[in-house]
Amino acid sequence: MSHVVDRQNLDFLFYAVFGLEEILSHADFVDYDRAAISGILDTTQALSERELAPCAAELDANEPKFVDGKVVVPDRARQALQACASAGLFAAMFDAEVGGLGLPYMVSTALNGILGCGNLALANYLSLTVGNANIVREFGTYDQKRCFLPPMLEGRWFGTMCLSETQAGSSLSDIQTKAEPADEGGYRISGSKMWISGGDHEMAENIVHLVLARIPGSPAGVKGISLFLVPKYRVSSDGCLGEFNNVAVAGLNHKMGQRGTTNCLLNFGEGGDCIGQLVGEPNKGLSYMFQMMNEARIGVGTSSVMSALSGYLFSLDYARTRLQGRRIRDKDPLAPQVAIIEHADVRRMLLAQKAAVEGGLALSCLCASLIDRQRMAAETQRDDLALLLELLTPVMKSWPSEHCLEANKLAIQILGGYGYTRDYPVERFYRDNRLNHIHEGTFAIHGIDLLGRKVRMQDGRALQLLAEKLAATIGRARDCAPLADSAGDLEGAFDALKKATAAVSGCDDPELALANATLYLDNFGHVVVAWLWLEQALAASAALADDRADYSRSFLEGKLAACRYFYRYELPKVHAGFTLVGSLDDTGLRMMPQAFLGA
Amino acid sequence: MSHVVDRQNLDFLFYAVFGLEEILSHADFVDYDRAAISGILDTTQALSERELAPCAAELDANEPKFVDGKVVVPDRARQALQACASAGLFAAMFDAEVGGLGLPYMVSTALNGILGCGNLALANYLSLTVGNANIVREFGTYDQKRCFLPPMLEGRWFGTMCLSETQAGSSLSDIQTKAEPADEGGYRISGSKMWISGGDHEMAENIVHLVLARIPGSPAGVKGISLFLVPKYRVSSDGCLGEFNNVAVAGLNHKMGQRGTTNCLLNFGEGGDCIGQLVGEPNKGLSYMFQMMNEARIGVGTSSVMSALSGYLFSLDYARTRLQGRRIRDKDPLAPQVAIIEHADVRRMLLAQKAAVEGGLALSCLCASLIDRQRMAAETQRDDLALLLELLTPVMKSWPSEHCLEANKLAIQILGGYGYTRDYPVERFYRDNRLNHIHEGTFAIHGIDLLGRKVRMQDGRALQLLAEKLAATIGRARDCAPLADSAGDLEGAFDALKKATAAVSGCDDPELALANATLYLDNFGHVVVAWLWLEQALAASAALADDRADYSRSFLEGKLAACRYFYRYELPKVHAGFTLVGSLDDTGLRMMPQAFLGA
Repeated sequence: MSHVVDRQNLDFLFYAVFGLEEILSHADFVDYDRAAISGILDTTQALSERELAPCAAELDANEPKFVDGKVVVPDRARQALQACASAGLFAAMFDAEVGGLGLPYMVSTALNGILGCGNLALANYLSLTVGNANIVREFGTYDQKRCFLPPMLEGRWFGTMCLSETQAGSSLSDIQTKAEPADEGGYRISGSKMWISGGDHEMAENIVHLVLARIPGSPAGVKGISLFLVPKYRVSSDGCLGEFNNVAVAGLNHKMGQRGTTNCLLNFGEGGDCIGQLVGEPNKGLSYMFQMMNEARIGVGTSSVMSALSGYLFSLDYARTRLQGRRIRDKDPLAPQVAIIEHADVRRMLLAQKAAVEGGLALSCLCASLIDRQRMAAETQRDDLALLLELLTPVMKSWPSEHCLEANKLAIQILGGYGYTRDYPVERFYRDNRLNHIHEGTFAIHGIDLLGRKVRMQDGRALQLLAEKLAATIGRARDCAPLADSAGDLEGAFDALKKATAAVSGCDDPELALANATLYLDNFGHVVVAWLWLEQALAASAALADDRADYSRSFLEGKLAACRYFYRYELPKVHAGFTLVGSLDDTGLRMMPQAFLGA
Repeated sequence: MSHVVDRQNLDFLFYAVFGLEEILSHADFVDYDRAAISGILDTTQALSERELAPCAAELDANEPKFVDGKVVVPDRARQALQACASAGLFAAMFDAEVGGLGLPYMVSTALNGILGCGNLALANYLSLTVGNANIVREFGTYDQKRCFLPPMLEGRWFGTMCLSETQAGSSLSDIQTKAEPADEGGYRISGSKMWISGGDHEMAENIVHLVLARIPGSPAGVKGISLFLVPKYRVSSDGCLGEFNNVAVAGLNHKMGQRGTTNCLLNFGEGGDCIGQLVGEPNKGLSYMFQMMNEARIGVGTSSVMSALSGYLFSLDYARTRLQGRRIRDKDPLAPQVAIIEHADVRRMLLAQKAAVEGGLALSCLCASLIDRQRMAAETQRDDLALLLELLTPVMKSWPSEHCLEANKLAIQILGGYGYTRDYPVERFYRDNRLNHIHEGTFAIHGIDLLGRKVRMQDGRALQLLAEKLAATIGRARDCAPLADSAGDLEGAFDALKKATAAVSGCDDPELALANATLYLDNFGHVVVAWLWLEQALAASAALADDRADYSRSFLEGKLAACRYFYRYELPKVHAGFTLVGSLDDTGLRMMPQAFLGA
C-alpha cells in the first residue's frame, strides 16, 4: 500500500462527492479528463514515494545548518525538489497562459498534499514558491511577471513570504521594516524579518522574498503596510541574475518539526543596499497578502490533513502486522498472538484517524472546489461562492491543525513504545504537524476572525449560505433511511451553532463576545466536518446501491462506518461546546493575572 | 518565580486539602513537623533548580550514546544525580529502619515530582531505583536486603525494571526470557529485554535489574513468571562488587523525549553466564511486580503532572512579559502593545493548564495520602483505603497522560512560533510527557483494567466507596452557596458515570462491554478530578472566610476560578462520553480491517 496517498479515497472525493467531472467540463480545463488527471496523480505519487519520502527522516535528523555564511541542506533535498520541478509541479495551479499546467485548484491542492504526505518539510518549498508566484501573477506589473514568474514556475527560483518580525507575529500592525524610495528606482529595504520559511538555502538559483514594509510617511497600523518583491540576488530588467542584494541570514530557528524547511531570521539591507520593487499600490500590501494567504490557508490545512494521513497509513499498516495479545475472550496463553488491529481500542484509534483525515481532506476538496467553481459560475453566484469560502477559510486552516494533530497522536499510540522512538516516523509526523496550529494565523486568531467577522459579514449571509447547503444535505439524508438519524443529529448541532452565534451577536462587549472564539471555531469545524461526512455517506450509499460502482464494497462500507463514528463519537461534543460559548462565560476573561499562582 | 514547583499550591494541597498535619501526627512520622517538611522541600527545590533543570536541555540535545561498549551520558547528569543522592533523596520514601528518611508517601511523591519538573529524564533514574529498592524491601530475603538496599538508598547503585520484550509489550504473558537453576546457586538468565529505562550507563557503581523470566517447567502465561534480581556486576555475599554479569547492551532506543533517560535493549547471558537471584517464590513474579507498579503508577502520573507544570509555569511567565497586540477594544495602532496575558484566549489556555496541572496534582496527593492513611487506619478501614486506591490507580496513571499532555500542547501555543523552537523548553516538555500515555501500561490497558475489573471488584464496592466520598463533598458544597451549582453538576456527572457503568455491567459480551473502555476511563477521570476541584474550592472558600489564612487572597481566588473553569469547560463533556459508553456502541469493534482503506 502507498504511504503517501489513498487514491481510491481521492477519486471518491473528486468524482463521487465534489463533482470534478463537472469542473473538468469547463472550457478552462478542456485539456483534462479523468484519465489525464489520473496520470498526473500517478506521476506525483511516484515522485513523493521515490524522491521525497525516502529523505524525510534524513532531513529531520540533519536539519539545515549555517556554515560559512551559507545555509546547507542535505543534497538529496535539492535533487528531490528538482525532480518535482522537472515534472512541472511548481506550475500545477497556474493557467497555461503564464506557463502553468492549468489544472483545477482541487487537483493542484491534492498534488501538493501528496508531496506533503511524503515529505512536508520539502513540499513547503514548493508551496511557498507557488504562493509567492501567485501574488506576482495577480498583482505584479507586466515586467515583474515577465522576470519572476517563469523561473518560479520552473522551480529554478524559490519564493518566501516575509511578514513577521520578532516584535510583530500575530500583531502585524506593528511591523517596522522600512522601504525608502531609492534614487536609482525601487525601494531601499531595511529591517529584520522572523520565521521566514525557506528564507535561505542553496537549492535554487535565486530566492524571491515578498516583504511587508512601511514606506516613510505611511499611516500607522495595518493601513500603512506595503508589499515588496525583494530577491536574494538582484534581477536585471531582462531577468538576468545580478549581484547579492544584501538579504543576510541572522540565524536559523531550530524547530520541533518540519526541520528540513529552513526557517530564518533575515536582515534586509544590513551590509549594503537591499533593493525591492513595490508590488501593486503603496499601503495595500496587507490586503494583497491576505488575498493570497487565504489560498495558502487551504494549503496549510491540507498539509495538516496530509501529515495525519501519513500517520494514519503508517499505523494502519503496522496494526495489520504487529502481533500482540489475544482477543478478550481468548484466555489460552498458548494461542498465537493476534494482529493488534483485532483489538477494539486499536480499531477505535484507527477510525478516529480515518474520520479526522478523510473529513479534513473532504474539507480541503470543498474549499478548493469553491475556487474552481467561482471560475465557472455566473456573476451572480460567484459572490456567494466567494463568501462561503471566506467563511470556511478559518475552519480549513484550523480544524485539521487540532483534530488531525490528535490523529497523529493516536498513530504514535498505536505503535506504542516503538511509536515513541525516532526509528519509526509517526513521532516525526506529530512534530511536523504541531506547527500548523501556530503559523498562517494561530487557532485563536482564526477563531476571532470567524466569530468576530465572518459570521457577521453581510448580515450573516455567509452563515445563511452554509445553512442552505446543510439543509440540502440533511434533506437528502432524511430520505436515505440508514442516514436519517444522522440528518437529525446534524440539524440539532447546527441549531446549537446558530443559538450560540445569536447569543454572541447579541453581546455588545466585544471582548466578552469573543472570549471563547477559539472554542466556537473548534465546534463550528466539527459541524462542518459532520456535514461533509454525511455528504460522503450519501455518496457511498448511492455507490453501494449502484452495481457498477467504481469503488470496492469494503471501501464504501468503511465510509459509512467512519461517518457513523463521527456522528456518535465526535458530533455530540458540540452541544457542550456551543452551550458554553452561548453562555458568554467570562471565567478566563476575568481571571486576574496574579491569581494564576497567587502573590 | 520558581519554574520547578508552586510551593503555595503544594502547601495548600498538603495541609488545607489532604490533611498532611494529621498524617504527621502518626507515630511513624514523629520526626517531622510542618517546618521540617518545608525544609526538605526547600532542599529539593534548590537541587532541582540548581542541579537538575540547568542540564535538562543539554541532556535532550546530547542524548546518551553507545561508544566502545559503554553508554555515555553527559557528566553533568551524573553530578546532578549524585547531588540528589547526597541529599538523601533516594531514601526519601523508605522507613528509617532500612536507612530511609521515613517521610510520608505524599511528601516523597512530591519531592520526586519537584525533581521531575526540573528534569524528568534525570529524575527517572531516581524513581526507578526507588521502585526497585522497594520491591527488594518488600519481597527480598534478609541477605538480598542487606546487600542491595543500602547502596540503592544511598544512590550508589541504580535500579531498573525489566518486563517487556520485543514480542511482549502490553502482552506480558508472552515473555520468553529464561531462568534456569544454576549448579552454583541462583539462576542462569538468558533472553532479551526491551525498553529498559536506565538499562545501562556509567553513572552508578552498579545497576540492579529486576527481571521477569520463566523457570523451565513453569505454567504458560502470567502464572509462570518469576522475578529475579540481576545485577550488572555480580555481588558477593558480603555485598562487594564482583565480575561483569553479562548484561549486554544490544542497542539504545532513540526516543521522541525523555532522551536523557537511557533506554536499552539488553541481552542477558549472551557473552557468558548471567546469574540472577530469585525474588520471593517462583511463578509469583508478576504479582510482586504489580504490587509495586501500582506505586510506580502514582509516580508516572505525577511525572506527567509535573511535565505539565513545567510548561504551565514557563508559559505563564512568558505570557506576563511577552508584548503582542492590543485589547480588542483598542483600535489605536500607536498604543503600546500589551502583555499577551491580557488576551482572553491566552488566559483561557493558562486556566486550562492550571486546571489540569493542579487537578492532577491533587489526584497525586490523594493517591499518595491513601498509602499514608493505610498505615494509620484501623484494620477494618485499611481494606477500604486500599480498595479505593486500586480503583484510582488507572485514573492516576492515565488521566494526566492525556490532559496534562494537552496542557503541554497549550504551553507551546502560548509561546507561538517561539514555543515551536528548541530555544524554548516547552516543546521538550511536550515530547517528554508524550511517553506517559504509553509506558507502565497504555491508556487502553488501564481502561480495560478500570471498566473490566476495578469497578466490578467485590460487587462494585470500590465504586461505592468513591460514591460515598463524592457524596460527602457534594453535601458540603451544597451548603456553600457559591459552590452549590457545582455540587449539582458533580452529582449529575456521577449519575451519568453510574448509568454507563451499569449498562456495561449488564452486557455479557466482554469484547463489546470493553470496546469503549478507553473513553470510560477518560471520562471517569474527569469526574474524579472535578470532585478534587470541588474539594479544593471548598478549602479555598474556607480559607478566604478565615482572616488568618496561610494563603494569599489572589491564590485562593485563583483556586475558585480554576474550579469554575473545570466545571464549565471540562465537566460537561462527560455527558456525551458516558452516553456513548453506555450505548455499547460497536462502530469500532465491528469495523472490518479491510474497510479502513478498502480493498
